[in-house]
Amino acid sequence: MDLDSFFKPKSVAVIGASKHPRKFGHIIFENFIDSDYKGKVYAVNNSITELMGQPVYESVLNIPKPVDMAVIVIPAKGVPDAISECVRKKVKACVIISAGFGEIGNKKGEEQLLKEAKGRMRIIGPNVLGIYDAYSGVDTVFNPRYRQERPIKGSVGFISQSGAFGASIMDMAASEGIGISKFASIGNRIDVDEVDLLNYLAKDKNTKAIALYIEGSKRGKVLLKTLKSVTIKKPVVVIKAGKTTAGQVAVSSHTGSMAGESKIFSAVLKQSGAIEAFNVEELLDFTKALATQPVPKGKNIQVVTNGGGFGVIATDSIIMNGLKLAQLSRRTIEKIKKTMPSYAQISNPMDLVGDADSLRYQCALENVMKDSNVHGVVVIMLMQISALESDIVDVLISVRGEYKKPMTVCATGGDFTKVHTKMLEKQGIPTYATPDRAVMAMKALVQYADIRRKIFRRSGKDE
Amino acid sequence: MDLDSFFKPKSVAVIGASKHPRKFGHIIFENFIDSDYKGKVYAVNNSITELMGQPVYESVLNIPKPVDMAVIVIPAKGVPDAISECVRKKVKACVIISAGFGEIGNKKGEEQLLKEAKGRMRIIGPNVLGIYDAYSGVDTVFNPRYRQERPIKGSVGFISQSGAFGASIMDMAASEGIGISKFASIGNRIDVDEVDLLNYLAKDKNTKAIALYIEGSKRGKVLLKTLKSVTIKKPVVVIKAGKTTAGQVAVSSHTGSMAGESKIFSAVLKQSGAIEAFNVEELLDFTKALATQPVPKGKNIQVVTNGGGFGVIATDSIIMNGLKLAQLSRRTIEKIKKTMPSYAQISNPMDLVGDADSLRYQCALENVMKDSNVHGVVVIMLMQISALESDIVDVLISVRGEYKKPMTVCATGGDFTKVHTKMLEKQGIPTYATPDRAVMAMKALVQYADIRRKIFRRSGKDE
Repeated sequence: MDLDSFFKPKSVAVIGASKHPRKFGHIIFENFIDSDYKGKVYAVNNSITELMGQPVYESVLNIPKPVDMAVIVIPAKGVPDAISECVRKKVKACVIISAGFGEIGNKKGEEQLLKEAKGRMRIIGPNVLGIYDAYSGVDTVFNPRYRQERPIKGSVGFISQSGAFGASIMDMAASEGIGISKFASIGNRIDVDEVDLLNYLAKDKNTKAIALYIEGSKRGKVLLKTLKSVTIKKPVVVIKAGKTTAGQVAVSSHTGSMAGESKIFSAVLKQSGAIEAFNVEELLDFTKALATQPVPKGKNIQVVTNGGGFGVIATDSIIMNGLKLAQLSRRTIEKIKKTMPSYAQISNPMDLVGDADSLRYQCALENVMKDSNVHGVVVIMLMQISALESDIVDVLISVRGEYKKPMTVCATGGDFTKVHTKMLEKQGIPTYATPDRAVMAMKALVQYADIRRKIFRRSGKDE
Repeated sequence: MDLDSFFKPKSVAVIGASKHPRKFGHIIFENFIDSDYKGKVYAVNNSITELMGQPVYESVLNIPKPVDMAVIVIPAKGVPDAISECVRKKVKACVIISAGFGEIGNKKGEEQLLKEAKGRMRIIGPNVLGIYDAYSGVDTVFNPRYRQERPIKGSVGFISQSGAFGASIMDMAASEGIGISKFASIGNRIDVDEVDLLNYLAKDKNTKAIALYIEGSKRGKVLLKTLKSVTIKKPVVVIKAGKTTAGQVAVSSHTGSMAGESKIFSAVLKQSGAIEAFNVEELLDFTKALATQPVPKGKNIQVVTNGGGFGVIATDSIIMNGLKLAQLSRRTIEKIKKTMPSYAQISNPMDLVGDADSLRYQCALENVMKDSNVHGVVVIMLMQISALESDIVDVLISVRGEYKKPMTVCATGGDFTKVHTKMLEKQGIPTYATPDRAVMAMKALVQYADIRRKIFRRSGKDE
């Protein structure tokens, strides 16, 4: 059974739907009512008869129509019965939000659930934040929207073993304008796990790159093999928590899972073709670039800036991270110089200087993109100075659309700046608060290009 | 002559004050009118007679009262005359915003300015963003406030060789609620340089820690000596741009200065007692912690979290960065356990679990702070879940105020989260968007504690 019934169900039952606005069962039911979800949603609760103008059913069995997916939000002790009713109702997919299972030592409870469902219904959970699909409107996330914003439609697929990790990163992504295709937290993963979801997201047309937060795997060898096959199709960025002995101890009390042989994790990951994020920021920084930018043909990077200092820092970062500064052709330099004031520095970094307007960027970027010595461009746009108008956003979007070379953007600042970076993110141009981060994201793109080259060389196929 | 006339002038003349809202001369004049600046501000321009209801003087010489500071915002060719008029007027301090000097090879122009002013008037610039003092209201920053927000009063002193770097970082700081005491961009630094400003900020009572962006120094040995003496009094965090050969080339075309012997920079910096920021984020991340938190007595760090995954990541980061996990005393653990649900993990990391409220944090933090095995606390507060109310802010502020141990906070998320991190920043509690950054800031505190210990051991004095 594939996972479509989770992400594209025609009908959903929320078991434990509640009248109390703070209860998870209320928030989740409301999510489906308020979102773009096009299917039917049913409330199940044996103590109320009406919720938000909808009838409430005593049991999932009382719902007159078929139910594709159930979301269970009731205390642990009631979950086994709810599961067996779902199975009898021929529900295909079930998200168990409820905690109180393996994570507190109740392995027996989990076995009971599995015994009921095995081969008849797929389960995500228990002890999960749940799932989110920006396209179908499925949203089992139990945090209220005023606290956790929901990301717009986008191309980042996101799998998290930790619910809180997933929630806070999605919230951040939403606030920055980064689009998500599908999200799933896997919690105690008694059935659906990271391997299933990687395979599913590999086939999902909305997902262009995958971010994975993981503490350990119950089937490490299969995960490695899966990563190898998925990374041929799409880039996967992985952050591994529990890399130190102390971290592993913490893992075992968090999700009750084994952290696995963490010392060799980075090496194994490299072998698998996945890209490792070494800190939380890098996970989304890399994935959003990989999800939106074309693969560079090499590692010669051009820096275009209106702030000299940031140009220097980007240059240092390029060199220190093993990338190269692109050498522009004489022809490119001459063409750009024609339209620039004499004090602009037409080299690499290219400093268009503080009084640069959007036109100056446009001329520089179009010529830089055309130069075959350039494989990718890091654009620094500082919006504090009034010479640079909001139409820089249009320039970047149009240049990016016209040429098949990756672009990452650094824009450091406050609210005014963020209005513009959000517009860029929404149009699939990854932006970063510092030059170093924009360069590191470019490095991830170069890394994935290398991975692809190796894969295709090995397979003897053309890219 | 000390630098008080720049930061606390009784009267200011804006030479080049303009009617056109986009011109720097307009913005700077408006800054003084709109800010808390208590002194007199005079507009100087020989082509208009009135500006914002104020009389405009043809020359600084026509101003009937004394002028402490002049800000010059006219084209380069007019600057020498303006300077000599300022000297005749006995102006004590002059900020030259105007570009068109050393940075484009016009060294002669700079010599001319120096000859006029030497020994009679101090100069910051030319080619600068200028200076900002959140306490006195002095604000020569030529970027409009809707584009570059101004930071609130705070304890971070900030010196930047690059104006654009300074502008974007101040904008970011303002937007995040980080307070700044004084800022200066030094540009071509024909007179006042980083050494003068370090010495001045060392004595400034509002400044508790100093951030320095530098590409190179004209007097490296004096800078080293100065850093050594300043770091005895206050921590200094330095980011050096132009560390690679390519970066050095970029530096020479940016500010026309030599990048200096960059290979040995990190070693020299270490010797000087300054803390190096290895990327742009770290500069403010470290400085705001050092400016607000007490010096830890050791490197045993306790993690308190409501998200297990982030707790694991913080733990990894503590170990990988050479800090230690604090071992709580049995008594502390027992006391905390009494008030906690059984599923909370009372160890290190201490996972108060997703349903933790502010009271649970309060109990945990008060007992952790009292434990002599703990030298510093990294608090992770994820605000997505509705169990944690806004009063967590009050809890953190009260605990931090009560105990003399440093605290850094991680809160990852979107707009709702940022409302709370801004409140914390304003109260002097440094917050970070990821756990790794909160741990790195704690490491900077531990680093400064080590530096102080070494200094006092060397000097034979008590701390």
